[in-house]
Amino acid sequence: MPVRTIDWVDGAVELVDQTLLPDKLVTLRIHTVGELIEAIQRLAVRGAPALGVAGALGVVLADGDPGRIAALRAARPTAVNLAWGVDRAAAHLNGGREAVLAAALKVRDDDIAACRAMGERGADLLEGDRLRIMTVCNTGGLAAVERGTALGVVQTLHERGRLAEVLALETRPLLQGARLTTWELARMGAPHRLIADSAGPYLLAKGGVDAVLIGADRIAANGDTANKIGSYALALGAERAGVPFVVVAPESTIDQGTPSGEHIEIEDRGPGEIVTVRGVRVAPEGTQASNPAFDVTPHDLISAIVTEQRVIRP
Amino acid sequence: MPVRTIDWVDGAVELVDQTLLPDKLVTLRIHTVGELIEAIQRLAVRGAPALGVAGALGVVLADGDPGRIAALRAARPTAVNLAWGVDRAAAHLNGGREAVLAAALKVRDDDIAACRAMGERGADLLEGDRLRIMTVCNTGGLAAVERGTALGVVQTLHERGRLAEVLALETRPLLQGARLTTWELARMGAPHRLIADSAGPYLLAKGGVDAVLIGADRIAANGDTANKIGSYALALGAERAGVPFVVVAPESTIDQGTPSGEHIEIEDRGPGEIVTVRGVRVAPEGTQASNPAFDVTPHDLISAIVTEQRVIRP
Repeated sequence: MPVRTIDWVDGAVELVDQTLLPDKLVTLRIHTVGELIEAIQRLAVRGAPALGVAGALGVVLADGDPGRIAALRAARPTAVNLAWGVDRAAAHLNGGREAVLAAALKVRDDDIAACRAMGERGADLLEGDRLRIMTVCNTGGLAAVERGTALGVVQTLHERGRLAEVLALETRPLLQGARLTTWELARMGAPHRLIADSAGPYLLAKGGVDAVLIGADRIAANGDTANKIGSYALALGAERAGVPFVVVAPESTIDQGTPSGEHIEIEDRGPGEIVTVRGVRVAPEGTQASNPAFDVTPHDLISAIVTEQRVIRP
Repeated sequence: MPVRTIDWVDGAVELVDQTLLPDKLVTLRIHTVGELIEAIQRLAVRGAPALGVAGALGVVLADGDPGRIAALRAARPTAVNLAWGVDRAAAHLNGGREAVLAAALKVRDDDIAACRAMGERGADLLEGDRLRIMTVCNTGGLAAVERGTALGVVQTLHERGRLAEVLALETRPLLQGARLTTWELARMGAPHRLIADSAGPYLLAKGGVDAVLIGADRIAANGDTANKIGSYALALGAERAGVPFVVVAPESTIDQGTPSGEHIEIEDRGPGEIVTVRGVRVAPEGTQASNPAFDVTPHDLISAIVTEQRVIRP
């Protein structure tokens, strides 16, 4: 990735506006917490690890204002990493701006190292030489800083010559799979095919997949995992097909304060994203919609959780 | 439904062009088998029962030409009703055009009666008074002639005052749920919400659904059912949630010549429908895609199959 997804450059947060991909690669410069919250809520920056870095860097922009910090921390409810990143930087508020900035940059650098470690541990965990991987949403460099989580494992497999193909779910409503994952896979030269979300469980049943790899937005203490809507359906399909279902996420995604999945708040992003696709209306005027952005996969359907430190088998 | 989805009017086939809904209600007049095949392949007319009627009426247009009849019969591979409708009318070719037309009109009238019967039998089968129904694709009047199959049951429930709400899957890639099912439900005044396909299994797990009702494109002798892609994922979700999963389809959908689901040919409609949504590109240029239009739900996941004659418990 020649461009970091998010970084601190010359006194401001710089981030790739992911709503414009794959059509345009545009980097935004962000100087205020208000601008950052707006970027987070419209998903210009998204992905649990990247949100952790955004949270930490945002505290630098907040100049110690407790109201701004609290608003940033609550900008999206499901991903625990955002609040975690805010808290890591905010713990250094007493040390002044330089201390906060140093802590935030450490969050960034730790993410880079963690994603590299997850990629290697995940690739070591999987067996076989011509692996066909299924994944949902975008968990690549665009969801982190340099390399990603689940797609970081794919990247490592590809670098090791062990990747046959990726089946990428398009990931309605916002099509992160169609727009972002295909874009990243093309840049890394990895063979891939795009599929409708609903085709995932069926293609698992047909036997063409060796492993499902997903990221996570929050992992409860018992291993129940909140991730992009559609993850649970893949877990059901993987279980029935006997295919390993592996979550790849940094330790910061594990929330020991949440005992199980039923306690995870699931963000509903409203009907607009469902009744339109990239600005084109697809349903009659006045149609009501539900739009849960995440679902919860119960721990009994998860084969392994790979972090930068360990492999957990829930 | 003030307009029949498909009918024989003044010496031609008339059908609603479903690719233009919900924006425009346009009726096409079709005079040749070539035009009819084109309409079938671009899904201007779709839905297993409507395809049966299209097949039968198309034989009238074929004027006894065996090549035209064979091409019509093979226009789409997965829905058995198309071939069945062709065969029903073609059996009367020796009787001349009037005999073929009479047979084709009987296919049409039988469908109208069958859908009414399925609606009543399905509504009788379900228990409860404020039912929340989940469905995929479009199985309403637009998939048949006047009333539909699974959505025909919904219509009967609504007429009996027993329907609380329908959760309609949008049904990528061609969005029949978003475009057609919502349109029909609005016209019948039935409360409904649109959801992304991948949200179906999760909302089943959350406990807000009393039954899943789907149609069928082909039912194998052992009960395995081919239906719109995404049906299998709903079946997995329904099983885990303990929610009845009911197939509603006419007897003509049951193919005793196909022993089980693995023998059903699944149409792949090519990458175009996946990399675009209603004409808008959603993936980078050059992206490869797989596009299975149907999947197969194994019979052990099906609670009941409701036809115009009986309830089958596979």
